[in-house]
Amino acid sequence: MKFELWVIGKTTPQWIEEGINEFTKRLKLLQPVDFVLFNDVKNAKSLPVNILKQKEGEMILQKMANEDYLILCDDKGKQFSSKQFSVWLEKLTNLSKKRIIVLIGGAYGFSDEIYSRANEQISFSKMTFSHQLIRIIVIEQIYRGFSILKNLPYHHG
Amino acid sequence: MKFELWVIGKTTPQWIEEGINEFTKRLKLLQPVDFVLFNDVKNAKSLPVNILKQKEGEMILQKMANEDYLILCDDKGKQFSSKQFSVWLEKLTNLSKKRIIVLIGGAYGFSDEIYSRANEQISFSKMTFSHQLIRIIVIEQIYRGFSILKNLPYHHG
Repeated sequence: MKFELWVIGKTTPQWIEEGINEFTKRLKLLQPVDFVLFNDVKNAKSLPVNILKQKEGEMILQKMANEDYLILCDDKGKQFSSKQFSVWLEKLTNLSKKRIIVLIGGAYGFSDEIYSRANEQISFSKMTFSHQLIRIIVIEQIYRGFSILKNLPYHHG
Repeated sequence: MKFELWVIGKTTPQWIEEGINEFTKRLKLLQPVDFVLFNDVKNAKSLPVNILKQKEGEMILQKMANEDYLILCDDKGKQFSSKQFSVWLEKLTNLSKKRIIVLIGGAYGFSDEIYSRANEQISFSKMTFSHQLIRIIVIEQIYRGFSILKNLPYHHG
């Protein structure tokens, strides 16, 4: 099984990238998660929001295979405690899917097409975090989840 | 009114500090928030968890005045959307308190004495985040909240 975290737009500033690298490195020993970065849509800033989301959605769907299991990070998705999240991660790895994709949207969220394609939606908070900061939050929580499953002393429940 | 974010233990690694600095700097123009760091309790790592939490609690309470308004960041606290959080921030600034303290606990949370002293408990997620990463999350969310109140284009609701 491949486990991938997909994000849209260059990671910036530098400290965000360092945060992602820290947890991606730690995860390697537990459950490797590939960080896959999609370039921003051309002229993103001058496009109306709906068009931008649609173009981002098309870019994502083009890179997906039918068998991929797609999970969206969305503040309206299912909420978990970290312990519950670790149980959910375990179920996920037992789905025997070839590839599991956790997708973090751009600054404005997802197109309708992406919502329709998604297999699940998960939420890390009722709050909205910047689409850059959420990258660290997601990868830290995946690390925390697998460290709970492996009984590592990272999580103080 | 003074608005302070209190945290226990040195900020580390460097990227966490950079993240905090980024949002503290941006906040200066909207609502200055002082970041106040308490040193780790001596021999923290060799102390039983309950003793450690108690010692951290005493250290905090010593620095507080009776009139201070104390808010704990606790995953069992009240949850908000970012919009609701901005409304809550507005109410807070209208309380006409001399000092508002938002406290982030150490790695193991708070002592009973701190829970008893607290005026409010707020939650940024059902999930547990590292007591380092949560520092950026809290300060980003405070920045987001005030940027909503000031109609800045940071939050895409």
